[in-house]
Amino acid sequence: MSRKASLSGFHEWLPAERIVEHHVLDTLRTTFELHGFSSIETRAVETLGQLLRKGEIDKEVYAVSRLQADAGQDGGKAQDASDPNRLALHFDLTVPFARYVVENAGHLNFPFRRYQIQKVWRGERPQEGRAREFTQADIDVVGDGALPFRYDVDVALVMAEALGALPIGDFTIRINNRKLAEGFYLGLGLQDTAGVLRNIDKLEKIGAAEVSRLLQAELGATEEQAAQALALASIRTEDTSFVQQVRALGVSHALLDEGLEELAAVVGELHRRAPGRAVADLSIARGLDYYTGTVYETVLTGHEQLGSICSGGRYDALAAKGNRTFPGVGLSIGVTRLMMRMFSQQMAEASRSVPTAVYVALTHDDDWSAAQDTAGALRSRGIPTEVAVSAEKFGKQIKYADKRGIPFVWFTRTDDDGRAVHEVKDIRSGEQAEADPATWMPPETDLRARVLEN
Amino acid sequence: MSRKASLSGFHEWLPAERIVEHHVLDTLRTTFELHGFSSIETRAVETLGQLLRKGEIDKEVYAVSRLQADAGQDGGKAQDASDPNRLALHFDLTVPFARYVVENAGHLNFPFRRYQIQKVWRGERPQEGRAREFTQADIDVVGDGALPFRYDVDVALVMAEALGALPIGDFTIRINNRKLAEGFYLGLGLQDTAGVLRNIDKLEKIGAAEVSRLLQAELGATEEQAAQALALASIRTEDTSFVQQVRALGVSHALLDEGLEELAAVVGELHRRAPGRAVADLSIARGLDYYTGTVYETVLTGHEQLGSICSGGRYDALAAKGNRTFPGVGLSIGVTRLMMRMFSQQMAEASRSVPTAVYVALTHDDDWSAAQDTAGALRSRGIPTEVAVSAEKFGKQIKYADKRGIPFVWFTRTDDDGRAVHEVKDIRSGEQAEADPATWMPPETDLRARVLEN
Repeated sequence: MSRKASLSGFHEWLPAERIVEHHVLDTLRTTFELHGFSSIETRAVETLGQLLRKGEIDKEVYAVSRLQADAGQDGGKAQDASDPNRLALHFDLTVPFARYVVENAGHLNFPFRRYQIQKVWRGERPQEGRAREFTQADIDVVGDGALPFRYDVDVALVMAEALGALPIGDFTIRINNRKLAEGFYLGLGLQDTAGVLRNIDKLEKIGAAEVSRLLQAELGATEEQAAQALALASIRTEDTSFVQQVRALGVSHALLDEGLEELAAVVGELHRRAPGRAVADLSIARGLDYYTGTVYETVLTGHEQLGSICSGGRYDALAAKGNRTFPGVGLSIGVTRLMMRMFSQQMAEASRSVPTAVYVALTHDDDWSAAQDTAGALRSRGIPTEVAVSAEKFGKQIKYADKRGIPFVWFTRTDDDGRAVHEVKDIRSGEQAEADPATWMPPETDLRARVLEN
Repeated sequence: MSRKASLSGFHEWLPAERIVEHHVLDTLRTTFELHGFSSIETRAVETLGQLLRKGEIDKEVYAVSRLQADAGQDGGKAQDASDPNRLALHFDLTVPFARYVVENAGHLNFPFRRYQIQKVWRGERPQEGRAREFTQADIDVVGDGALPFRYDVDVALVMAEALGALPIGDFTIRINNRKLAEGFYLGLGLQDTAGVLRNIDKLEKIGAAEVSRLLQAELGATEEQAAQALALASIRTEDTSFVQQVRALGVSHALLDEGLEELAAVVGELHRRAPGRAVADLSIARGLDYYTGTVYETVLTGHEQLGSICSGGRYDALAAKGNRTFPGVGLSIGVTRLMMRMFSQQMAEASRSVPTAVYVALTHDDDWSAAQDTAGALRSRGIPTEVAVSAEKFGKQIKYADKRGIPFVWFTRTDDDGRAVHEVKDIRSGEQAEADPATWMPPETDLRARVLEN
């Protein structure tokens, strides 16, 4: 991570860093599959019409066109920046998933549980130090027409378990509910609920006094209404006691009741099952995203300024096909953002830079084929093994292993009776002992490159 | 695969197909890591200057530009199709790997063994039915200055093992050596060896008579020289007997000797270790690629018209940095091409469409949290488990599992003493028996979705 990307915003990992990333992605995949989520991948490109469908022009998009077409062979048609059929790289996995669901609705079983781990691209300004290419790991459950609320609890439990299995220390999933906030504002007499949310979303940036001023100046709220909206946003509890705190503010509305009940269900179950992992945080607004109920974001303890590493929420209509709607709820982990922090803060590292556990040394150059037999015997038991290509001095062969962090070097010599004698050396301790390629196993901790949490 | 891609050339798999693809990718990864190959990923974009460095203008490239820049904010600079700094999607993994090696040479240990499994993009004409986005799986070994020849044998052995572990039936790795062919042509008195290779490469398409005519017309070969070049190209042996057949043609040249020795080493070792998997095929030319020694291609038995599914070779200079060169040897599997054939010919399928092995049914709606305890106990032993979200009729809950191919449904009821009684039903046989969530295991064959070879 001390290396500078040769193309601003496009990070590439060294082999040892990639081992850590692979571990993170494998852990996520394993957890998602244990909870019955199916893997899908969507193509990297969507049409501009699809990508900008929800008016998300704030996300800078990378347009894609065939170079030959640019050169005029397609009559320059593809050059029109506003052509909705023009192709562009996806900037998240939600829009492509919605399109996939609509296209394949006849082939999918609903509710459909899917996870998707892929790269996305955004043409962010490089000076902000943001990644332009990064990996996201999403889970969503999508229903056909209806999707029971319980999935809002389910996906949060899955993510709490997935994040808890990563070498990233403590984290807090902050949860709110749009219905709760909107019902509260309506109960207060503030009709422009989106306007209130937009201003509450600025709370951390500009402070309570300025938000109060904006609510009064822009939305015509009274000082009392603004104070109430701010009081709601200040509520934070690890259990369901937020319900009483909201009730104590004396506002009532049917939508508020619904939101309170939903948020209590999510937070209550998380508190029971993953204590300390989640809070009801009534300041969470999730910006301009089109959520309609539960909203989630996640901060790493001690790295709060990194922003949310895992966000999401409930959509009443993730996708639509004619008058058929597909509601959904899900969360998305910003894997690359997490990796960059893990490396810059040295939160975790690989136990070695290669998968290899055993390096088979050569005594004579023409032992190579026999050494492959030894390696094959080890590999058949899942032991990653490399074979030297020439019979250099043993010291040099050991150095090959040492530089890569390979823990064991295997030597074979012929005894006086012409029989092969195998010995394996732990190059960390220097211990060397006879071993049988058909049965020898390294300690479990040396079998694979491991990820060590610092 | 009966579905048509909504964007021509961009294929997306259904969840059950993705299980097969995941199995293929996992198998490749496992094999590559068992042989000590490190995983890397490179960014999806390269500069045009990098991509077209070797003059590969035949590969149609997708250019990438920020939409905002297109709209004129960057002064339209990015629009120049010939600007070498313009970004484009990579069309293979070799060019990006070469750039990665040069950029990170100070952080890598050479010889560097890496595998890379990523998508690549080519703006091929859609009417040819080719994929425009597809996954490649590459292995390469790259040296700093020199790379012992033995790696040419090594990578072929690894790929033979990797392909042999896939549900694709029989295949043949066809191997040749550029030095052998070029030495032979030089020994014959034909100086334009690239010209001869280019014509020999057309053999399958246009036939021996036409190649002979072209060699005489274009390269000034005598009828005898053309006949000799064609005789060389007709040699095919599973073992090293090709050496005698070449010698019998009576041509001699130092480069020919070197090529014969190298090819004999590769084919001999493969014949010993993976009999039937490889042939010396002296017609293989690998088109215009810049190989300098061993060349490989691979056909699936019974699917020869599909073309090569795994190709590669040796480069004297995979990359260069000043006067430092990095020779390399490697092979690349066209995974998407393979998957398309596997699906269209129904060569393999997933045993179910979801990872889930057990579906925990609900007797009452408020059993959900207790059902999560049951599911958690099963998941802790690696059993993928889903929980119903509402206590619908058991028939409906069983149907949920049945539609997805989930083999087991779990029922919990309370006995007369108020104790929970757990039963698990195999919905294929209808057998139902008491089970303990803390100890029950499904048969090994039901634990995960498997891939069945047809």
